[in-house]
Amino acid sequence: MKARILSNEVKDHIGKTIQIEGWLHKKRILGGLTFINVRDRRGLVQVVIQDKNEVEKLRGLQIGTVLAVEGLVKDEPRAPGGAELHEAKLTVIVSVEAEPPIEIDKPLSHKSENLDTLFENRVIGLRNIQEGKIFKIRAGLLRSIREFLDKNEFVEINTPKILAGATEGGAEVFKVDYFGKEAVLAQSPQFYKQIMVGVFERVFEIAPAYRAELSATTRHVSEVTMLDIEMGFIKDHEEVLDTVQDMTYHVLIKAYEQFAGELKSLNAPELVLKEKFPRYSVAQVHEMYTKATGKDTTKEKDLIPDEEKWLCDYTKKNDGCEAVFVTHFPVEAMKFYHMVNSEDPSTVMWADLLFRGLEIATCPQREHSYEKLIEQMKKAGLDPEHPGYKYYLQAFKHGLPAHGGCGFGIDRLVEKTIGLGNVKEAILFPRDINRLTP
Amino acid sequence: MKARILSNEVKDHIGKTIQIEGWLHKKRILGGLTFINVRDRRGLVQVVIQDKNEVEKLRGLQIGTVLAVEGLVKDEPRAPGGAELHEAKLTVIVSVEAEPPIEIDKPLSHKSENLDTLFENRVIGLRNIQEGKIFKIRAGLLRSIREFLDKNEFVEINTPKILAGATEGGAEVFKVDYFGKEAVLAQSPQFYKQIMVGVFERVFEIAPAYRAELSATTRHVSEVTMLDIEMGFIKDHEEVLDTVQDMTYHVLIKAYEQFAGELKSLNAPELVLKEKFPRYSVAQVHEMYTKATGKDTTKEKDLIPDEEKWLCDYTKKNDGCEAVFVTHFPVEAMKFYHMVNSEDPSTVMWADLLFRGLEIATCPQREHSYEKLIEQMKKAGLDPEHPGYKYYLQAFKHGLPAHGGCGFGIDRLVEKTIGLGNVKEAILFPRDINRLTP
Repeated sequence: MKARILSNEVKDHIGKTIQIEGWLHKKRILGGLTFINVRDRRGLVQVVIQDKNEVEKLRGLQIGTVLAVEGLVKDEPRAPGGAELHEAKLTVIVSVEAEPPIEIDKPLSHKSENLDTLFENRVIGLRNIQEGKIFKIRAGLLRSIREFLDKNEFVEINTPKILAGATEGGAEVFKVDYFGKEAVLAQSPQFYKQIMVGVFERVFEIAPAYRAELSATTRHVSEVTMLDIEMGFIKDHEEVLDTVQDMTYHVLIKAYEQFAGELKSLNAPELVLKEKFPRYSVAQVHEMYTKATGKDTTKEKDLIPDEEKWLCDYTKKNDGCEAVFVTHFPVEAMKFYHMVNSEDPSTVMWADLLFRGLEIATCPQREHSYEKLIEQMKKAGLDPEHPGYKYYLQAFKHGLPAHGGCGFGIDRLVEKTIGLGNVKEAILFPRDINRLTP
Repeated sequence: MKARILSNEVKDHIGKTIQIEGWLHKKRILGGLTFINVRDRRGLVQVVIQDKNEVEKLRGLQIGTVLAVEGLVKDEPRAPGGAELHEAKLTVIVSVEAEPPIEIDKPLSHKSENLDTLFENRVIGLRNIQEGKIFKIRAGLLRSIREFLDKNEFVEINTPKILAGATEGGAEVFKVDYFGKEAVLAQSPQFYKQIMVGVFERVFEIAPAYRAELSATTRHVSEVTMLDIEMGFIKDHEEVLDTVQDMTYHVLIKAYEQFAGELKSLNAPELVLKEKFPRYSVAQVHEMYTKATGKDTTKEKDLIPDEEKWLCDYTKKNDGCEAVFVTHFPVEAMKFYHMVNSEDPSTVMWADLLFRGLEIATCPQREHSYEKLIEQMKKAGLDPEHPGYKYYLQAFKHGLPAHGGCGFGIDRLVEKTIGLGNVKEAILFPRDINRLTP
């Protein structure tokens, strides 16, 4: 038996007889000849079967059948990879007799009304080449994020996802029965990454986070993959934003180089990015948006979704950059651990990073003074004596320097990098209020 | 204000006045001089304070105080990093007035009777330099694992940790209230990684996994970090073992190079490793152990913990390698998705990787035939029609090639690489039946 040649290597063997292995991906009969496509981890190989006995081996077999194919490589510019196999001899390794629940040899519909079908048939649907590309790009983005963070001395940490109590506030939490005690699933590693600033100054974690989101929108899922970054001894909030900006720039530029072909075939928009992302305050955005659209948002605490879209379109046109920081969130929207802006106490040292119309990261500086933090907790109606805060507060009591960081939505980054319409399309097996399978 | 110089760079500035920033880590008075150690993310700097006014600034301040120190760099072979700061001028950035709950300027006790204290004071205890090293080594191990897997075309995946039902068998599961429905936390991404073989052939995931372990031993925790690998189109089970072996070899050799100093200071044993790990069958090990110790284990299905220790000592001495595969597990111990050994149906294509006396990975080949898998499920008393198996079985129904992989315990790898006594010492914030905080 010959060594296995992978699909993208086939064209290097023109004139030779080689062996490929993979899945039967497509089958059609054309002018008395049988053509099949065989899929492996690198792509597709077109195979021409002339011999009737060979064609017979495929009788009754369906897409998904695992095959080895020996054949002579011929130049064929119209075939995937620019070459195809002739005089094919087939060995059926695993027979598949059931018809696939979904056709995978053409792009799957991602229309919102078809998403449920997409996810219901995910196990087989992911075998579609276009779907596969989404998740290769995702893995590539994760790889370059780590590369950037390693280079900048961030230490990777793994923190617990089962917690004693819901203490961070914000989204609803999932409850876990922990040996008879009630526990909750972590919404984020917020407290732990701040604690770890006291150990390594700079840390990051890429891990699942859980939000019992009751809303079913294009941006909500109950299990997300979050990149959490935290850095200490910062000079100011700008240093946090610069770091997130540099990482995002590096990661996007690299993805558009490394996956140029994949992104094009997925109809991803062209990337419009500058090294320095524009920065506008929430108040500025409200004012600009109100003026441009006539819809008055000046009373809103946060940006409304349509403002996020409008702003990214605006900066794309006017600043040549579709990533933008929105800064100076109003103090009414703050979490207890945010740092109030000392130069303008009606705002917080908190910025969001928007990309292509969606918030993909939130990047605040934290209050690092033990006394002020306690004060802010009380103001927020929280009890600093509650056992859930004990260990978190310990880190401040025993000294934390100025620090800040970000919670960066990996699923949203993937969605927007490719130009998908719903965050779930960027997740292998998404979870929401209605979906707990596959 | 001068730019910050980090601790390990201080010795490059002898004769110059520089500024460092960090935490007050140690303070002592010696012959009328005050010595302090300042800790930053790279290590310690010794500072000599002569000026009484400067000494006065530290009055009442405790370990953890955040400082900037300006001083003249002098050569001092006895100081950490080979240099120290003189004529120090201090700026207190964050005052700490509370005494630390644990002394962090000397190694913390890891004796089993002190572990509870260690974890109760983890938030501050991790600031001990030796503790920090453990988690820098951990991050380094993760980095080189990813490096190896990237190079070998494994695609990183993120799979859900909230599942509809407990279908894999084995350890007890934690229950989650999922919008009123009962769900469970994933014990492993077993089903998903097999499904993903049908997409990418080779995949891996590094993620938390949950086992509601009722036993409190040195090897059990309820939340672990698992490396899961799965590879398709394998020639045989050996190919899986070779991959796990090559990865483990690469990762350990690299850690012992990259962290030579840290491992020495943590009293890690010297690494005794060969490129090819010895392989013994379970039956062989039982026989060898029984003969050597007089304790009869030949009736056991699995290895007993003492056999694992004995075997690694044995192979270290006799094969020059403290990593060893134990192969040919008896069919009585199999899980329904394992592949039975066709040459000897009383055994399974399942091997464990032991390192320094502990099983750190389990590396079976899976049954990939849809029909045989269904048969094995029925034999194991499981109902293939149960909705919990629907999506998993779909992958087989529509074609999966021969495949296998491993579940590799990251926490155990860290524990054994460093030579710790309890897996919890290798986890930042461990979770067990008694501990849900910090």
